[in-house]
Amino acid sequence: MIETDVVIVGAGPVGLFQVFELGLLGLKAHVVDAMPHIGGQCVELYPDKPIYDIPALPVCGARELIERLHEQIRPFAPQFHLGHTVTALQPQAGGGFVLSTSAGTRLRCGAVVIAAGLGAFEPRRLALPQAAALEGHALHYLVRDAKAFAGQDIIVAGGGDSALDWSLELVEHARSVVLLHRSPRFKAAPASVARMHALCDALRMQFLEGDIVGLDTADTALQAVRVRTRAGLTVRVEATHLLVFWGLHPKLGPIADWGLALDRHLLQVDTAHFQTSQPGVYAVGDINTYPGKKKLILSGFHEAALAAFAIKEQLTPGEKVHLQYTTTSPLMHKRLHVEPDLSGLDDVM
Amino acid sequence: MIETDVVIVGAGPVGLFQVFELGLLGLKAHVVDAMPHIGGQCVELYPDKPIYDIPALPVCGARELIERLHEQIRPFAPQFHLGHTVTALQPQAGGGFVLSTSAGTRLRCGAVVIAAGLGAFEPRRLALPQAAALEGHALHYLVRDAKAFAGQDIIVAGGGDSALDWSLELVEHARSVVLLHRSPRFKAAPASVARMHALCDALRMQFLEGDIVGLDTADTALQAVRVRTRAGLTVRVEATHLLVFWGLHPKLGPIADWGLALDRHLLQVDTAHFQTSQPGVYAVGDINTYPGKKKLILSGFHEAALAAFAIKEQLTPGEKVHLQYTTTSPLMHKRLHVEPDLSGLDDVM
Repeated sequence: MIETDVVIVGAGPVGLFQVFELGLLGLKAHVVDAMPHIGGQCVELYPDKPIYDIPALPVCGARELIERLHEQIRPFAPQFHLGHTVTALQPQAGGGFVLSTSAGTRLRCGAVVIAAGLGAFEPRRLALPQAAALEGHALHYLVRDAKAFAGQDIIVAGGGDSALDWSLELVEHARSVVLLHRSPRFKAAPASVARMHALCDALRMQFLEGDIVGLDTADTALQAVRVRTRAGLTVRVEATHLLVFWGLHPKLGPIADWGLALDRHLLQVDTAHFQTSQPGVYAVGDINTYPGKKKLILSGFHEAALAAFAIKEQLTPGEKVHLQYTTTSPLMHKRLHVEPDLSGLDDVM
Repeated sequence: MIETDVVIVGAGPVGLFQVFELGLLGLKAHVVDAMPHIGGQCVELYPDKPIYDIPALPVCGARELIERLHEQIRPFAPQFHLGHTVTALQPQAGGGFVLSTSAGTRLRCGAVVIAAGLGAFEPRRLALPQAAALEGHALHYLVRDAKAFAGQDIIVAGGGDSALDWSLELVEHARSVVLLHRSPRFKAAPASVARMHALCDALRMQFLEGDIVGLDTADTALQAVRVRTRAGLTVRVEATHLLVFWGLHPKLGPIADWGLALDRHLLQVDTAHFQTSQPGVYAVGDINTYPGKKKLILSGFHEAALAAFAIKEQLTPGEKVHLQYTTTSPLMHKRLHVEPDLSGLDDVM
């Protein structure tokens, strides 16, 4: 059983900055995230896109933002439990909580901060009765290696970069590749789309416009996919594997079962402490809601700061928590491991 | 009469970021500040000190923070009225306000954001009956040029960098210099203190420990300063000029007279819109208060973002204001004058 002051659920930008604000107040944190790496949505959804609205960073790539925050929290040496989902949250009789993760880790803490963004990301799945039985056998939402499909007849469904990129790579390995998308418009790199059209012209792959309406299966094997084409005709396309790349969508996951007050899948908090309906459980960033809430990274940062003060007051009751400035406070300098500046301020105030 | 969407009172970090958040929503702003330069407290009180708690900026000098924010708001071309204090705020019958400044400028706007920090900074003054008549003649709280005191007998009061630095410089020009401070401890660069002691040892200046208890004056001229020394003795020190460097203290100024609801000299706001008790007048940063408020630059940034949305809704009633992300929205890219990224996101959500 690990003992710590605070467990933060979510290693996105706001979860990382939560480590910093707790650290300034002398509180230690462990961070749990379902993804195998830190960064959350920023790294998952738009790693190379610039963000323009982080104060004092006129342009900052999403991945760069995460690297900067990782550097900023270094003095507080947070411990990460990556690739773990939180499976249970049990309030303890004497106060505090025990959290359990999917990897069997148990953490005892005084407070929990949920910074889980939109929740864990899951692939958007095919909603057909036979789909579940095929998943992991002939139906795939995630591909690690195109070579695993050597000699197979493949249908790739989707119109984004993932669908295009895997189609182009599978052409080199599979027996046949059909790209299936409901429209001739793609949300993918123009060069990839041009290359796909060139391969179709060379009869090395095919592009079909339509929607999947049925699957012909035998146990966990796929025989054919039934497609309603744009002209209204339903055709049967033989294939041994179906790869679906319809993007990711967020799922609140087990957090929904913790009995916390929700408003349209978001955790209700107050704007002084950012505490949920369960005392000792706080929520910051995109997963919370309150009057005026905007899903801005900046707002999550502010919420993390105020939640840290509330947690400090909760964990040290009766002790007044003073705001000390990182610019001037020797205690803040000590916690940040920075050299104090000896020149002193002028005699102001 | 200047016409604009919003007038921001205060050009500190939060006032500058307010320009940015309004700009993203298509609103134009003018900024008024009592100081002759932008930057507020950051530049006035600790320009060269590092700040450690701005998210994603592990270390940032105060002056650098202001430069970064100035760069970030460049696309929105704000207009500054520096060295102006706001002298009047008049609500108009048809909605909106007319603001008047000390320089006679009049601005008509739909909303006002007060981002005035701790208020305008004023020197801490000598509280003696004869002091007011001497000010600007023989009594000075601000010095521009040591040469102006050539051949004079000077008393410099204070124990900070300003008092030390001016004493050391005046030694080169004045006939005599006495540094007066209530204690032998200084809040100044150790090298300056050491140099002052060396000059005293060389009889080029004197240091006197004590408090000013009286002034001998003739009209606007100074004859002598009466000082109670630490030993309890009162001595009369002849001097033609007295320079007082007791630091700055903030003053809310005319804002206190606008009839806005105050709580211990701070403007009360709600946490959804950051609006004061006067509809259309908002307050962000250190000058506002609400349950849980912490005087963090970060919190001011968040408040500025939410205030911008509230102002947009106020100025375009009935029109729903959607949050658009700077990472993906073509409208945001247009307003920021950045080139759109044509590769597109994968088909997420």
